[in-house]
Amino acid sequence: MCEANAYLRDGEKDVLFMESVDTIEPYENGLKLVDIFGKQQFIKARIKEMTLLNHRILLEKISNI
Amino acid sequence: MCEANAYLRDGEKDVLFMESVDTIEPYENGLKLVDIFGKQQFIKARIKEMTLLNHRILLEKISNI
Repeated sequence: MCEANAYLRDGEKDVLFMESVDTIEPYENGLKLVDIFGKQQFIKARIKEMTLLNHRILLEKISNI
Repeated sequence: MCEANAYLRDGEKDVLFMESVDTIEPYENGLKLVDIFGKQQFIKARIKEMTLLNHRILLEKISNI
């Protein structure tokens, strides 16, 4: 299975945000993530880096300026 | 292996842009894609939808307004 784990960059650390992510799409000002069980999460973030072979998606929050 | 194929939405069609994509990251006003062989491609596009279990990344061009 080729799902991936999504991490959120928090300062120096990457914190696990959602496991077993299947689909990602833009949603309003952020992203909608859906895992392999159909659970949805929304986050005001963008993709910072994604490495599919490592099953790893790194997100970063979109700052309000 | 969990690489994916990247397609570019062109009107009603989705045209294959790059096969066997491993990593994706933002690059200037678009994206940098690297395949499993290390080949890089840059495209002025954003991710429209990604379904990892289907090994499919759909891109759409960023229009200049």
